[in-house]
Amino acid sequence: MLKNLEELLKLAQGRKAAVALAGGEDIEALKALKEAEEAGIVSHVIVAGKKEKTEQNMKEVGVDYEFIPTDTDEETAEVAVKQVSSGKAQVLMKGLIKTSILLKAALNKEWGLRTGRLLSHVILAHSPHVDRVFFITDGGMVIKPTLEQKVQIIQNAVELAHKLGYEKPRVALIAAVEVVNPDMPETMEAAIIAKMADRGQIKGAIVDGPFGVDNAMSELAAKIKGVKGEVAGKADILVVPDIHSGNFLGKSFVYVGGGTIAGVVVGAKAPIVIVSRADTARSKLMSIALAIAAH
Amino acid sequence: MLKNLEELLKLAQGRKAAVALAGGEDIEALKALKEAEEAGIVSHVIVAGKKEKTEQNMKEVGVDYEFIPTDTDEETAEVAVKQVSSGKAQVLMKGLIKTSILLKAALNKEWGLRTGRLLSHVILAHSPHVDRVFFITDGGMVIKPTLEQKVQIIQNAVELAHKLGYEKPRVALIAAVEVVNPDMPETMEAAIIAKMADRGQIKGAIVDGPFGVDNAMSELAAKIKGVKGEVAGKADILVVPDIHSGNFLGKSFVYVGGGTIAGVVVGAKAPIVIVSRADTARSKLMSIALAIAAH
Repeated sequence: MLKNLEELLKLAQGRKAAVALAGGEDIEALKALKEAEEAGIVSHVIVAGKKEKTEQNMKEVGVDYEFIPTDTDEETAEVAVKQVSSGKAQVLMKGLIKTSILLKAALNKEWGLRTGRLLSHVILAHSPHVDRVFFITDGGMVIKPTLEQKVQIIQNAVELAHKLGYEKPRVALIAAVEVVNPDMPETMEAAIIAKMADRGQIKGAIVDGPFGVDNAMSELAAKIKGVKGEVAGKADILVVPDIHSGNFLGKSFVYVGGGTIAGVVVGAKAPIVIVSRADTARSKLMSIALAIAAH
Repeated sequence: MLKNLEELLKLAQGRKAAVALAGGEDIEALKALKEAEEAGIVSHVIVAGKKEKTEQNMKEVGVDYEFIPTDTDEETAEVAVKQVSSGKAQVLMKGLIKTSILLKAALNKEWGLRTGRLLSHVILAHSPHVDRVFFITDGGMVIKPTLEQKVQIIQNAVELAHKLGYEKPRVALIAAVEVVNPDMPETMEAAIIAKMADRGQIKGAIVDGPFGVDNAMSELAAKIKGVKGEVAGKADILVVPDIHSGNFLGKSFVYVGGGTIAGVVVGAKAPIVIVSRADTARSKLMSIALAIAAH
């Protein structure tokens, strides 16, 4: 169990790998990669992007990465993805390129990173107020998952947790309330998925729900509400109803709790790092560390 | 603008009022009211509930409130609501009684507290990490509001803010992203409602959206993302897409940020206090203070 995101950095240091950056026109991404190199988690960087701007950026940041110039965003995406599918890099990272263009290339049937599974987003979050790292999914990719998609989102997150050393992560499907309420489909879906896990339809994890976010995160809150079971108050992975609720919960670790978050897209053959301009430098570094640790 | 919830307590001390408690069988509610009396915000308490248990509870807590014994929960609700509609109390509080039974009585056409408006829930939230109090609505009552209901939710929250001294509260409709995305109806609704406010269809507030929760709460985040306007980074009221997202965001102030929240149901002739067992004593006191300050 990760106590904080620093431990993520240590895991990544033990699994140093190469990163392919799609879109070297993004100077912030180059800065983050430089910091990741200095932190000893990135062994090599291959950059795809428009020649002039990327070379200018690399000069400004003071790095001299392997560079493949491209003419269009589609070419940038293809080149970067192929670095990973060919094994030259182990992690794909989004630079200045539309997410949709990059993911389309990542899902290419011939040379992409397709596994047949859904791509989903996982946030790892910690704040000074909590005693462990929480996985939140999906607050960044699948807008409003169906029941089937939610199962895949869970499987992706469980696989990520395994790679980070969790033997049997505790997965909580959370909603506004911890009881099944027929007026809230999310609580019924949570109950259904919990039973699917009981019947062996989801493996490698202990899955339960519905929970309120309080009685999933806090043993005291679970005790007061009388919510029992192996996941109550001890959840590692919080599965949210939709992108809005997951996004708010993830960002709350930064904007309400003064903590840090890292994010990664999973479900492809390699982890995909997609950071946002508004992310802090620390958060960008931790997202790269998360992908490296999980490759 | 409230800097923290302590200021709420001060406002309530200046507007001391009487509370009608529905369900004196709830000893925790009696304890919270005793604390509120000691904090100088409650002038008088009238309790409705089953005779034996309520009298036993009052003895145990060490209070001797005006008491009207009842035989059924429906009668408890009716008696408590009538204390408020007759003007003997200014705030209604839920004790050991189903929320649905209490609200049905509150909406009774003859003797209830009906205004014709939607009832909605507002959370006031603060954590040590933030510089002001945030209003979050609706994370506790309306499960998935329609566009029309969302407008009423905003009007209710704006009216509450006015009562707490906000002349022109800044209202942010928040979603996972700050841009209009046709795949996210919540972002389109936010845009529509922002324009309705521009056209004078929502008064007494500055309303804008969509925002991400980060660029609604933090001026720095708004600046980095280039999100402009009078509400960006300065929101007082955060309007959420549904009950789950609002509930997570509200609870995050406690479980992620180590802060405090207060909650109140608005839209009736008087504020209605509905606290949860899992709320801390501080949170219960602050919810009573919020209702008193807003009566």
